[in-house]
Amino acid sequence: MSGVTDEGGQGTAEQRWFYGVDVGGTNIKLGLVDDGGRVLARRTIPTHEPKGPADAMARIAGALPEMLAEAEGQSSGRVAAVGLATPGTMDIPSGRVLEPPNMPHWRHYDVRDDLARRVGVPVAFLNDGNAAAYGEYWIGRGRDFRSMIMLTLGTGVGGGIIVDGRLIHGSHSFGSECGHMVVDSREDARLCVWGGGRGELEAFASASAVVARTRDRLQAGEASSLQQKAEQLTAKDVYLAAREDDRLALAVIDETARYLGIAITTLVHLIDPGLVVLGGAMDFGGKGDAVGDRFLTGICEEFHNRAFHVVRDTTVIDFATLGSDAGFIGAAGYARATLDATTS
Amino acid sequence: MSGVTDEGGQGTAEQRWFYGVDVGGTNIKLGLVDDGGRVLARRTIPTHEPKGPADAMARIAGALPEMLAEAEGQSSGRVAAVGLATPGTMDIPSGRVLEPPNMPHWRHYDVRDDLARRVGVPVAFLNDGNAAAYGEYWIGRGRDFRSMIMLTLGTGVGGGIIVDGRLIHGSHSFGSECGHMVVDSREDARLCVWGGGRGELEAFASASAVVARTRDRLQAGEASSLQQKAEQLTAKDVYLAAREDDRLALAVIDETARYLGIAITTLVHLIDPGLVVLGGAMDFGGKGDAVGDRFLTGICEEFHNRAFHVVRDTTVIDFATLGSDAGFIGAAGYARATLDATTS
Repeated sequence: MSGVTDEGGQGTAEQRWFYGVDVGGTNIKLGLVDDGGRVLARRTIPTHEPKGPADAMARIAGALPEMLAEAEGQSSGRVAAVGLATPGTMDIPSGRVLEPPNMPHWRHYDVRDDLARRVGVPVAFLNDGNAAAYGEYWIGRGRDFRSMIMLTLGTGVGGGIIVDGRLIHGSHSFGSECGHMVVDSREDARLCVWGGGRGELEAFASASAVVARTRDRLQAGEASSLQQKAEQLTAKDVYLAAREDDRLALAVIDETARYLGIAITTLVHLIDPGLVVLGGAMDFGGKGDAVGDRFLTGICEEFHNRAFHVVRDTTVIDFATLGSDAGFIGAAGYARATLDATTS
Repeated sequence: MSGVTDEGGQGTAEQRWFYGVDVGGTNIKLGLVDDGGRVLARRTIPTHEPKGPADAMARIAGALPEMLAEAEGQSSGRVAAVGLATPGTMDIPSGRVLEPPNMPHWRHYDVRDDLARRVGVPVAFLNDGNAAAYGEYWIGRGRDFRSMIMLTLGTGVGGGIIVDGRLIHGSHSFGSECGHMVVDSREDARLCVWGGGRGELEAFASASAVVARTRDRLQAGEASSLQQKAEQLTAKDVYLAAREDDRLALAVIDETARYLGIAITTLVHLIDPGLVVLGGAMDFGGKGDAVGDRFLTGICEEFHNRAFHVVRDTTVIDFATLGSDAGFIGAAGYARATLDATTS
């Protein structure tokens, strides 16, 4: 990062604030976060994907003054750095988005330097799954852990791997792509809905995959309350049917849990992080919900049946705690860590 | 590490030397290595497993004076630290071996502090697969890479993951256990010969697994020149039969390559290291051998068919270069890196 402004307060009570930006295909989540991870102001703005990244960067920068005004009502500080998270392929060293899925107008654009010019402070650039993981690590479920892995279950499956406080970004900015683990090695294994490889986790544990597998079973004639919905089915419909003990819906959720348990076994045998966190919108009701608890229990059982004893009883598997804020909070936290690393 | 001796030469030409120790179930490999990774002296001593670890530590320390004398003929230096690599489960923070496979007399013993007392310099303790990986990273195939993964194919399958120069040891000293990745998720998948979980890489890509799978095919009545050998079959026999175009032997080797290609796809999608290196004794003749080349080509083809385009054409997959020296060289190199980290 260049253009680091010298912070430190100089006798004032002024705090370091961080601006976290989490770009998605439909919406962009923005948050002003203080040095301890507290959210002082937040916004959600539309991505307007066809207008391209420069338009979005202008609106991201444009939202900041109003958010600063809101934050100044609670505290005193100024923005020390920005964290910018985007989906899909990217080149982190050059600050470029490459070819994010479903964002054809965002290809090969230097988002990092564009935003840095507009905001006037350094921008730390990272993958959206890694940002969510970093958020949970900084102030969420992983706050008491040195290492952790997060799987984000949404339209697709993303993830972030943190080892001793460091994110695994990869040599080609393709690290921590947990959705692309091979969990079914058969030659006729399922394909990812998003054009990924055969038998990858995303073909089983994404919302799209849950819908596709449910539809396959409906078409095969399995009895279910979902039969009349087959056309506009969503993962939420599957969850709601499971709440009513629909057998097909429960079978699909149990199978999703099984493949996640297999993936987590491999992840823990490779990284041994101590904690694996499940985030993203597809949580089947999450903790305390009958279906969510069954989902988590199924994952843990598969893991327990497979994992090596040294890690089997010592690894925590749990839902994330920050919800959809994890991405912008993590982007802000990563900007903070990057600033500290470059100025120390 | 405690008791770090202050090095630096103080005007003399004296170099820092490192003593690398690679413990195996049958033999212990020892090497005196200089600051640039050059091997000045080496020994192989028997493990004498039933005599236990204290006896072995005494003999490891006892071998050093003679090796120093040998080294002093070539250069001038003194031992700044020891690197000690052991197989199986361990507790790195406390310096303890836990329950290494096939080493029942070595359980729950503080090898690190025992050896440190005997040699009088700090001892860095790590897993044997990680040590081999670090050796290749330091001065072998990975010397020009910042990150890499090594798979060691021997009686079992081990591994080491290095990200930006740091080994992934794990929160319970169970990181980088690449042999325990799940590559076949079917409920009736093969079991590891060594009591590991179902469908794990070790059940396909270890020498024991190659023998077991060959034997299964022979028992099923497949034609092969190996039929008369079925009882005392080794992986080397399979290799030699493959050299003579034995169809069964080639099929087993091709299948081994396929599962390695699947495992490497997952590894690269998680870590994106830029380099994956194959080491260990089971290299089917290695580079330049017709069978070894077919083995490596099979691995690369499976990877190319599965990997995401961003990493598909940019990731190098190759044989290791240090042979069975990788373990002690890596242990020495890791001791050097640990010393530098604690004294800088």
